[in-house]
Amino acid sequence: MIKKISSVQNPFVKELVQLKEKSKLRKQTGKFIVEGRREISLAIKGSYNLEKIYYCEGLFTAYEVTTLYPYGINIIEISKLVYEKVAHRDTTEGVIAVAQANKLSLNNLKISSKNPLILVVESPEKPGNIGALLRTADAANIDAVIIANPLTDLYNPNIIRSSVGGVFTVPIATATTDEIIEYLNSNNIAIHSAILQESVAYDSIDFSKPSAIIIGAESTGLSEKWRKISTTKIQIPMQGKLDSMNLSVAAGIIIFEAKRQRKFV
Amino acid sequence: MIKKISSVQNPFVKELVQLKEKSKLRKQTGKFIVEGRREISLAIKGSYNLEKIYYCEGLFTAYEVTTLYPYGINIIEISKLVYEKVAHRDTTEGVIAVAQANKLSLNNLKISSKNPLILVVESPEKPGNIGALLRTADAANIDAVIIANPLTDLYNPNIIRSSVGGVFTVPIATATTDEIIEYLNSNNIAIHSAILQESVAYDSIDFSKPSAIIIGAESTGLSEKWRKISTTKIQIPMQGKLDSMNLSVAAGIIIFEAKRQRKFV
Repeated sequence: MIKKISSVQNPFVKELVQLKEKSKLRKQTGKFIVEGRREISLAIKGSYNLEKIYYCEGLFTAYEVTTLYPYGINIIEISKLVYEKVAHRDTTEGVIAVAQANKLSLNNLKISSKNPLILVVESPEKPGNIGALLRTADAANIDAVIIANPLTDLYNPNIIRSSVGGVFTVPIATATTDEIIEYLNSNNIAIHSAILQESVAYDSIDFSKPSAIIIGAESTGLSEKWRKISTTKIQIPMQGKLDSMNLSVAAGIIIFEAKRQRKFV
Repeated sequence: MIKKISSVQNPFVKELVQLKEKSKLRKQTGKFIVEGRREISLAIKGSYNLEKIYYCEGLFTAYEVTTLYPYGINIIEISKLVYEKVAHRDTTEGVIAVAQANKLSLNNLKISSKNPLILVVESPEKPGNIGALLRTADAANIDAVIIANPLTDLYNPNIIRSSVGGVFTVPIATATTDEIIEYLNSNNIAIHSAILQESVAYDSIDFSKPSAIIIGAESTGLSEKWRKISTTKIQIPMQGKLDSMNLSVAAGIIIFEAKRQRKFV
């Protein structure tokens, strides 16, 4: 027997709205929202536990949901009115899930490669940039993306959306800058930091050994700690009139130079 | 004597708001809005004609405006209330200009290099991606960005903002796909199109000769015409679980591979 919710006053509806909007609540409860067919499929493939799936009447049937996601979870029908209230996007995908967050700690990061390639981004500001970064990290099949001193949790709906589900396919950790430096050093991973001063062109660096590419926020760059402990300081030659590139573009250029050197293995 | 506007009902205020919001009005009048100190400076350096500069009381003085932009134009003070109504951004930069649009036609494109590197993007969907592309094009100092069959005018405030003024520093044209193909062919510029089918890895292509990199929208890819007339079809190896990268990241990766091959000259 499928439960149906038609009132926007229903506490489940409030939970959905609040989990979408409040980073603090996501952290407290360890839950977050996944919207869209594709994203929910990727979350399941990425071994995320789903707690509930809500589907919009008319756009889906309960049977379709169980066919799409054969997963033994709580399936709830919602009215169009409720769906419009809780949906983040303008699309009519009609399906929204509540999922359990993973602990994105360095301890939980599993790196199987003997020659890892890792991206570290320090305090990135825009969810859209983080999403784009995760898509690049997925395409390049790098071993991990580590966010240093994050300004938002990774289960922000704008990150999930702009990553088109990459947040579920890429090994991710968040940690402090100090923890990450210790992690990289203890694993003998070279630290290549995007720092303008006293730097060399990114394509002159040998990325064929275990490597981490470290990039700071557009407005502030990397914190001082990285300067001191970097194996190399790298820059992308800037030949125009502006003084910076988009963060996710810059990361993509350096990651794919590393991949090119590694012959895309 | 500096004019001052305190009423949000003033017709100049309405003009500002409408030029910001309405692509059609921008096309009809050939005018658009530039917001922010840096962006206005770049527009002036890029030989754009400014018609008026509005500054917010308290944040600027008329004297400061004339010092910043020694330009003999109409300077108008606006009240805080008016500024809040017309400002696109949350910042308190306090200065907004009305500028005359350039004709972004292929005929007006001046390419001085004997070995041009050009980016063509077909019907890009998101202003933020176009802005990021323009920042990359500026950094790489490529000879032109040509938008095929644009879905928006280039003077969309979100493009200006996300390009951080790159829309004024990069030679830009808009045209139909047919016109662009003819332009590239008649100028003997090789056409390297990002098309998955029957393609080779982007880094196996020789970009050292006159080259255009052609990229389609994320959702639709390139139109059929490009497939037929391409010199080469190229792809970025995708090794993950998602099937695409962010458009501006993909463009950045290919542009900088071309620049690397050209030794950043």
